[in-house]
Amino acid sequence: MTEKLSHFDAAGQAHMVDVGGKPETHRVAVAAGRIRMKPATFAMVASGTAKKGDVLGIARIAAIQASKRTSDLIPLCHPVPLTSVAVEFTADEAGLSFECRVTVECTARTGVEMEALTAVNVALLTIYDMVKGVDRGMTIGDIRLLEKRGGKSGDFRAS
Amino acid sequence: MTEKLSHFDAAGQAHMVDVGGKPETHRVAVAAGRIRMKPATFAMVASGTAKKGDVLGIARIAAIQASKRTSDLIPLCHPVPLTSVAVEFTADEAGLSFECRVTVECTARTGVEMEALTAVNVALLTIYDMVKGVDRGMTIGDIRLLEKRGGKSGDFRAS
Amino acid sequence: MTEKLSHFDAAGQAHMVDVGGKPETHRVAVAAGRIRMKPATFAMVASGTAKKGDVLGIARIAAIQASKRTSDLIPLCHPVPLTSVAVEFTADEAGLSFECRVTVECTARTGVEMEALTAVNVALLTIYDMVKGVDRGMTIGDIRLLEKRGGKSGDFRAS
Amino acid sequence: MTEKLSHFDAAGQAHMVDVGGKPETHRVAVAAGRIRMKPATFAMVASGTAKKGDVLGIARIAAIQASKRTSDLIPLCHPVPLTSVAVEFTADEAGLSFECRVTVECTARTGVEMEALTAVNVALLTIYDMVKGVDRGMTIGDIRLLEKRGGKSGDFRAS
Amino acid sequence: MTEKLSHFDAAGQAHMVDVGGKPETHRVAVAAGRIRMKPATFAMVASGTAKKGDVLGIARIAAIQASKRTSDLIPLCHPVPLTSVAVEFTADEAGLSFECRVTVECTARTGVEMEALTAVNVALLTIYDMVKGVDRGMTIGDIRLLEKRGGKSGDFRAS
Amino acid sequence: MTEKLSHFDAAGQAHMVDVGGKPETHRVAVAAGRIRMKPATFAMVASGTAKKGDVLGIARIAAIQASKRTSDLIPLCHPVPLTSVAVEFTADEAGLSFECRVTVECTARTGVEMEALTAVNVALLTIYDMVKGVDRGMTIGDIRLLEKRGGKSGDFRAS
Repeated sequence: MTEKLSHFDAAGQAHMVDVGGKPETHRVAVAAGRIRMKPATFAMVASGTAKKGDVLGIARIAAIQASKRTSDLIPLCHPVPLTSVAVEFTADEAGLSFECRVTVECTARTGVEMEALTAVNVALLTIYDMVKGVDRGMTIGDIRLLEKRGGKSGDFRAS
Repeated sequence: MTEKLSHFDAAGQAHMVDVGGKPETHRVAVAAGRIRMKPATFAMVASGTAKKGDVLGIARIAAIQASKRTSDLIPLCHPVPLTSVAVEFTADEAGLSFECRVTVECTARTGVEMEALTAVNVALLTIYDMVKGVDRGMTIGDIRLLEKRGGKSGDFRAS
Repeated sequence: MTEKLSHFDAAGQAHMVDVGGKPETHRVAVAAGRIRMKPATFAMVASGTAKKGDVLGIARIAAIQASKRTSDLIPLCHPVPLTSVAVEFTADEAGLSFECRVTVECTARTGVEMEALTAVNVALLTIYDMVKGVDRGMTIGDIRLLEKRGGKSGDFRAS
Repeated sequence: MTEKLSHFDAAGQAHMVDVGGKPETHRVAVAAGRIRMKPATFAMVASGTAKKGDVLGIARIAAIQASKRTSDLIPLCHPVPLTSVAVEFTADEAGLSFECRVTVECTARTGVEMEALTAVNVALLTIYDMVKGVDRGMTIGDIRLLEKRGGKSGDFRAS
Repeated sequence: MTEKLSHFDAAGQAHMVDVGGKPETHRVAVAAGRIRMKPATFAMVASGTAKKGDVLGIARIAAIQASKRTSDLIPLCHPVPLTSVAVEFTADEAGLSFECRVTVECTARTGVEMEALTAVNVALLTIYDMVKGVDRGMTIGDIRLLEKRGGKSGDFRAS
Repeated sequence: MTEKLSHFDAAGQAHMVDVGGKPETHRVAVAAGRIRMKPATFAMVASGTAKKGDVLGIARIAAIQASKRTSDLIPLCHPVPLTSVAVEFTADEAGLSFECRVTVECTARTGVEMEALTAVNVALLTIYDMVKGVDRGMTIGDIRLLEKRGGKSGDFRAS
């Protein structure tokens, strides 16, 4: 059944999939995830400003930088020259969590789902890092692709 | 309240926390997370072998490498010379998911929680990457620190 | 007033500016800077050759490599596939300094000013590193963009 | 005369200096530099906050990350596990400039002057990058080592 | 005579060759190399599987990742967005060696010989690393370009 | 039989070997390799100087930098803070080749064989890169560990 996985050749060995025959098209990927924490921790992060503890601002920068490192981190990813990366945080007070949503765009022969997902993960890890001194029990989850446009495999939108 | 976050100085500005006064001690961190997928995808990954589609073997290598890149990815992390990294996958057939658990050790002035968490995230992203061609709806979650030992802030064990 | 800074969105948050709608055009950037040192140090660097102490040759290599790492170092820079990098040093005996001038070219959707400036900085830092054992008081300065061509924001030439 | 440059061996060839015989001692380096700009640009950067255009906050993160990449950028630098990095900006309204001052510490066999200087340079380049859309004529200068403590070559303080 | 080396300018100084005037064309490079070892070591590597000691599978991943790092490692290499990387190992029982053959493709202004050669080298180094505990006398050799297609310098095929 | 390979655990899965229990000792590794070329190419490289075409000087810098990237390139390598790296080239006119010999030292819990071997490989690849325009048929070989000292596995000297 694994022959359906394009990252493996006919002999089942990993390779970087040949995308040379694909046209360069505009591609967009949107991914999201969230980090849950204790009420006091949530309040602390939510109150951050540039003057005092801008946790989300730093996580945003880490996410943008990570999107550019994706092909270094994920073994079979193609290097892709990104044209746009945007990172948005939403405070979910009821859920005691922050959602991170990243939109990545490029004009390339392959998509940028992994770049969006990697940026989300590193954003959430960066929040964890800065806040772990007061709350080691935070959990990261709900990481998923929300949307993908462009490319011949067709568009995708999470149900 | 943010003055409790050690990654920010008295003026609220980010810094790399001074750990120079701490002794080098043996430190261990264990983190885990999981990726959920459709039944057919789960079967495909579970049946992988070196001969045909060894998804988990590749994710393990990506995780070990990512642990070494942690201070490059997480802005305020200290560079730490790791002495041991182990990555374990468990197939959860009932939950249609694979759990990844990473144990990192070092002898250093600061802990390796972020190294363990980063390795877990990159392992799960690598699985996503290799399988996304057949299942874009996979979700990554339950990422958390399970255990931390060594260092003056005391041991931690997830409840 | 900050709404004029394109690296921030309408809400004032940093993002990697969307250049996806721009055409790929030929772009050139020229930057320069200099390092000033004591007379004896100046003489030492000026006399370097491949056979003995080629400080400038090593700084040139460091500069070329740094130009390729620009998007890794500068958080909001786009990755750009450079097509040409040239590094030139001029000894200014009267000013007891070495000037470094870097010209970078590409065919891309965005310019290469930062690549040229980053290469200049790393060249000068590399000189500092190799000579600091005999002169810790060197100063680096006059780092500026000399020229920029290509792209819709128009050409620029330092006055 | 170049035989005085420790980065070259007796034959004048570059090498990474042997520091294996030195003891691990506590080391501190402080470096500084500044970026000059037009009055309107100065006002724009000075008014930034986490809510809107936090140029200095982003430059601070870039500086901390760059300090960790120093041995990657400067060919003959030893890799050093940093224990502390602090980045401070001072607005100089009269001089229409921002000064960046970076203090780096470690316990190692060699000093961290290059780490402090590299962080300063990348901080100033990051400011340039974010503001260049409105002011391409900014200049970076006055980059110098202010202070160095620890290690057998003795302490240094800029005159 | 060195004026024939395009990586040096008219003054004999290194530069990143200007490829801006070349068209983007499809390019392929194939390189190979081998590692020779003792009979017992050969048997050990040959018997590896995903379930137990998959040396070659890990070397393959390292090779693919290294191909993407080539312009970081080789000072004057242009960054090239690879479109395909395939790594093949052949066990040569008579020669007590494993041959690694790597094929890299791109659509770019310059070729990918260095990417293929770098991947081969890192594959063989990775095998050495994993097996060195039982055989430090292994040798790596026969590293050469087998074939190159695309680009105006014409095709090449090793004789 | 693979249970003898320490890079795999009891289940045959790759891990970064635990060296936490080993003492930090002084370690030295010496590796070598060579690149063979046509007579005209050999003459060209041999005649290089800082003033014109310093191929070997550039390869030396690339080698030193690569030694510091080893744990990034070789998946299961530990990060090691190197204390000394020296690169030596010998022209072998009879053999129409250049030999590269690299000596790496550290005080660490694990050895630096891979750092020395990686530096040799990248030195030779860098020569290939700069000369390939006139000689694509060069071959790289004889890459081997010459010597290793320090550590409990005992000293090694190639026979």
